[in-house]
Amino acid sequence: MLSDWIFRKCPDSSADCRDAARARQDQLTKPRGALGRLETLAIELAGLQQTERPGAERAPIVVFAGDHGIVAQGVSAYPQEVTIAMLANFARGGAAISVLARELGSSLEVVDAGTLADRPMPGIITDKPRRGSRDFSRQAALESVELAFAFDCGRRAVERAVTIEPDILILGEMGIGNTTSATAIAAALLQTPAETIAGSGTGLDSAGRAHKARIINAALARHHLASGASPERILCVVGGLELAAISGAIIAAAQRRIPVLVDGFIVSAAALAAARLNSSCRPYLVFSHRSAEQGHRLVLDALDARPLLDLDLRLGEGSGAALALPILRLACALHNGMATFAQAAVPDRKG
Amino acid sequence: MLSDWIFRKCPDSSADCRDAARARQDQLTKPRGALGRLETLAIELAGLQQTERPGAERAPIVVFAGDHGIVAQGVSAYPQEVTIAMLANFARGGAAISVLARELGSSLEVVDAGTLADRPMPGIITDKPRRGSRDFSRQAALESVELAFAFDCGRRAVERAVTIEPDILILGEMGIGNTTSATAIAAALLQTPAETIAGSGTGLDSAGRAHKARIINAALARHHLASGASPERILCVVGGLELAAISGAIIAAAQRRIPVLVDGFIVSAAALAAARLNSSCRPYLVFSHRSAEQGHRLVLDALDARPLLDLDLRLGEGSGAALALPILRLACALHNGMATFAQAAVPDRKG
Repeated sequence: MLSDWIFRKCPDSSADCRDAARARQDQLTKPRGALGRLETLAIELAGLQQTERPGAERAPIVVFAGDHGIVAQGVSAYPQEVTIAMLANFARGGAAISVLARELGSSLEVVDAGTLADRPMPGIITDKPRRGSRDFSRQAALESVELAFAFDCGRRAVERAVTIEPDILILGEMGIGNTTSATAIAAALLQTPAETIAGSGTGLDSAGRAHKARIINAALARHHLASGASPERILCVVGGLELAAISGAIIAAAQRRIPVLVDGFIVSAAALAAARLNSSCRPYLVFSHRSAEQGHRLVLDALDARPLLDLDLRLGEGSGAALALPILRLACALHNGMATFAQAAVPDRKG
Repeated sequence: MLSDWIFRKCPDSSADCRDAARARQDQLTKPRGALGRLETLAIELAGLQQTERPGAERAPIVVFAGDHGIVAQGVSAYPQEVTIAMLANFARGGAAISVLARELGSSLEVVDAGTLADRPMPGIITDKPRRGSRDFSRQAALESVELAFAFDCGRRAVERAVTIEPDILILGEMGIGNTTSATAIAAALLQTPAETIAGSGTGLDSAGRAHKARIINAALARHHLASGASPERILCVVGGLELAAISGAIIAAAQRRIPVLVDGFIVSAAALAAARLNSSCRPYLVFSHRSAEQGHRLVLDALDARPLLDLDLRLGEGSGAALALPILRLACALHNGMATFAQAAVPDRKG
């Protein structure tokens, strides 16, 4: 059973603040609407942050990691030990998200939400109910109590992040095999065959993708998920610990009025599960990029999401979200820093 | 007659440096290709900058401004005096590009390449052969010697920028009526009717767009440009001084191995003219965004360009290029700063 907090309503976006922000945009020295999505982004953030002047300066990054029993079925191009090796790489500053965090001046917290590591790793927060998930082609990946633990792990990460009063939160993931789990979650939530979603992950060829889709479809049939099930049951049966932690972190952040900058396919699948569990978190999701994973489009459509970037990224780690952060920051800087027509004594349009 | 320097060949991109950069990308701790366009971007910059480790830190912004006689025909939603008023706004720091330059740590130089201003303005470089262009619905917008002056104005701006050893140059424009001139240039270069290109500019409605297209088509017919003419003649007849300055700056930058981050429709039209005059500058063009102006797609297609961003921008000033700069910087930071598989002791993919 998931904890009660997960179902508590998130606060509404402030219509008054959105109106004030929109009025401000219309007075800035530019043709109305000429900054396109930057204008709607600033207005959206204003409503969520309950201010006429939104910001995106303080943007901590939290990466959740987990291992997946399903990799025993040969669904990944990389060996399972890469998950732990990459955690060490995050901590030492050599991974993509480490570089991005440094460049953006963002803190980077890495949470072992369920890897196979058998001892705490330096620079990594360990917060897991078990080492890895079970092979969902044979049994449910998680027990109910383990799933609840993972959601609470996500909430605990948000509670740590809240201490720096974040303007927005960036969530990422690492876990060999987690595109397979995310694909299974999305296929079950969207009631679509796995082959419409299964992508190349870290680099499968078309035979590898077909194999992955077959494994997933068989598991969905075996566990009776193919014809509809609750998000909670889906996450238990085919989920992963880092994915559930992300779903929990999204809901916990939205409940605290903190927008979340959503990364690619895997975080989006966790976001879809979060929105199905508690739809009031949806307005707090800002979608950063459309990934090269083919299933991402379906998940984004289901969330009625239009991401900011489309750069053929398929790395994960939160890297796509981090890459979009400067767009948010510049949207806010323009909104807050441009002169109005009156201030600049620039004539407004005719008529 | 345009000066001889315009036709001098730009140096080739270094295939050796591209190969070295590509080899480096393939060793970084990520699946090959997982950073998508950021990888190709870093490799492209490596070739242009002749280094295995490209950069985009030093990115000066130069905005060229001009006025346009064609506004007498009612082609703009804003009054002509906005050009000069906005120049003052640039100099005082209140315009979008001023805010972006501050946020990005870029210098901002504003060049009056041909506005109606009758005296030098504080904080603006004046470098013009005349005040405004002529109304091209009645006569050629520029004389040959004025066009040559504007190209040299662009080269002089590049020579000033070179003193800070730029990694990349951002070019922008300001000029009420310049979407009309840019549309006429693009229609003549691409041999297509103006209505396939004419957009809303700073905010015309559909009747305004139709009127603009009629004015342009009539001018192209009157000046015998509808059935093909040299880029030089097209720029003289329907061009603008700031547009020609941008074409000149692009060629001058490329001749000095400086990549140019191209803004929206208007700068792209000037880039198309530059590439038609001297095709060896084309590899130095990095396209920042696809604008909301409908003609931009045609111009981009003609240049075989795939921009980085698509955010419904239609402001100009170089703002779209400035917004894309963080993507270039982060692409370079990832390329230069990530650990290799060997350094991080991360297992590479199987088989």
